[in-house]
Amino acid sequence: MLGVIILGNNSAVPAFDRHPTSQLLTMPNRKFLIDCGEGTQIQLIRYKIRRSRISHIFISHLHGDHYFGLAGLLNSFSLLGRQQELHVSGPAGLQEILEMQFRAAHTEMAYPLYFHTIRQAGYLMTVDDVEISCFKTDHRIECYGFVFREKKNPRSIDPEAVKKHNIQYSWFETLQQGKDYKAPDGSIIRNELLTFEAPKGKTYAFCADTKYDESFIPDIKDADMIYHETTYLENFRDQAVKRFHSTSKQAALIAQKAHVKKLLIGHFSSRYDELDDFQKEAREIFPNTDLALEGVCYRMP
Amino acid sequence: MLGVIILGNNSAVPAFDRHPTSQLLTMPNRKFLIDCGEGTQIQLIRYKIRRSRISHIFISHLHGDHYFGLAGLLNSFSLLGRQQELHVSGPAGLQEILEMQFRAAHTEMAYPLYFHTIRQAGYLMTVDDVEISCFKTDHRIECYGFVFREKKNPRSIDPEAVKKHNIQYSWFETLQQGKDYKAPDGSIIRNELLTFEAPKGKTYAFCADTKYDESFIPDIKDADMIYHETTYLENFRDQAVKRFHSTSKQAALIAQKAHVKKLLIGHFSSRYDELDDFQKEAREIFPNTDLALEGVCYRMP
Repeated sequence: MLGVIILGNNSAVPAFDRHPTSQLLTMPNRKFLIDCGEGTQIQLIRYKIRRSRISHIFISHLHGDHYFGLAGLLNSFSLLGRQQELHVSGPAGLQEILEMQFRAAHTEMAYPLYFHTIRQAGYLMTVDDVEISCFKTDHRIECYGFVFREKKNPRSIDPEAVKKHNIQYSWFETLQQGKDYKAPDGSIIRNELLTFEAPKGKTYAFCADTKYDESFIPDIKDADMIYHETTYLENFRDQAVKRFHSTSKQAALIAQKAHVKKLLIGHFSSRYDELDDFQKEAREIFPNTDLALEGVCYRMP
Repeated sequence: MLGVIILGNNSAVPAFDRHPTSQLLTMPNRKFLIDCGEGTQIQLIRYKIRRSRISHIFISHLHGDHYFGLAGLLNSFSLLGRQQELHVSGPAGLQEILEMQFRAAHTEMAYPLYFHTIRQAGYLMTVDDVEISCFKTDHRIECYGFVFREKKNPRSIDPEAVKKHNIQYSWFETLQQGKDYKAPDGSIIRNELLTFEAPKGKTYAFCADTKYDESFIPDIKDADMIYHETTYLENFRDQAVKRFHSTSKQAALIAQKAHVKKLLIGHFSSRYDELDDFQKEAREIFPNTDLALEGVCYRMP
């Protein structure tokens, strides 16, 4: 897991050249698209991102600013001659809406398109070495956050050491799993003399749209990086509560309590032209906070 | 009818900072939006156009590049506190698609929203002094072009003449209709001595997506300005036929045969970066052709 590219960081009504929610989680060989607000395909072109690398799309909820760009993107994939399969996960209703639009246009997708309807919190799927699960957030309609967790990599073989001890290739998988080597003469060589520890897998969590909600802290605990919405500043806390959104301070509190390493904040209300105050407010509580700015790739810490 | 502002001039897949189809017909007190591809609301902001003046929206057909921006725009109107009514006209299926999306989001529009389903060619409605009708084009799915025709204005009273002849106010409406004045003594004063001719009403036609199709020439005959799609140049004529689109030359032939005053061309394929050749090709047949460029307002000739 390399990082997250922000495509849209605004709340529902686009403003100040900020766009509705969308971001890309990048891995060496593929990309996951998280939410797909109106204009996402245009943002992908603007930032010269290879669309064909997107293999999975995850939609948090059915407010338009999180998925109105999806039908257009799926269409364009087809018109551009995409052939590899695409997986779309989202709440109940999403598949019906898209299929109704495709029927009206007499559109047949040129590539295999698979829908996965999310019906409850929990495990979703594993793609390569990334396990994806979802959790419920406290929003006006059914809404899910997503956790992307790289599985702990296997230990890597120390080529010098296995050569020295004349260890056969057939033992390598066992060694990578951390087990000791048992020689034909019955002697034991401890695993850490034969392998290197692999870097720990990274975890990224996208907390979608939500009121301040401690209930999902266990889901995102110790994550390397999270994205949490901050539609308002703390002085608009009442508005935030009323509209099932969060303030910058509240996002920082969640990051702090979940012991994450880094916090990205976004989903800024169109009432704010300048964003500096969001960063300032969040950093007072959680210093390692960055504004999620469009076009920027935030590397996993 | 003042002019047409182009918001999107590209075909289905956005490219080169060109956007899917949308344009605004402007009048002194209101605007009509014709088609609403993805990103239309963002284009409206970019060109600083007052969205609240849009009273009617006309959707030609249900290919996504002509209406995927509509749900987002209708939503934003509601979030921005719009109160005045809005009328949306489009083919069967449009209302169901939008209402399904609103239901999924638990959205109640804050303003009165009226749908008008277009079921056949012919008269649609009259708004102020503009009569709106539609005609069928030859496209892959049901598709309508629109004609906006300002009714001939009434003649205007010559204040000096009516004073001189001592004509009562109660006669004015009759005179504006072009009838002669009959004095109490039975004498007649011819209308043209008492009134001025009003300027002729303007006509604009939007020819939507279409193959070369002479069948709608009677609908757009003698229009002051028309918009006709030119997805391809003439050397891609076979491609145009196959995909139910037109070439630049074909658009110009339609304009010529319909005796219109001015032709706007757009809906350019994403295969073309430069657009000069479209204009050149069309002008060889119909000199008063302009490229429909985004952000530009084309005045009625």
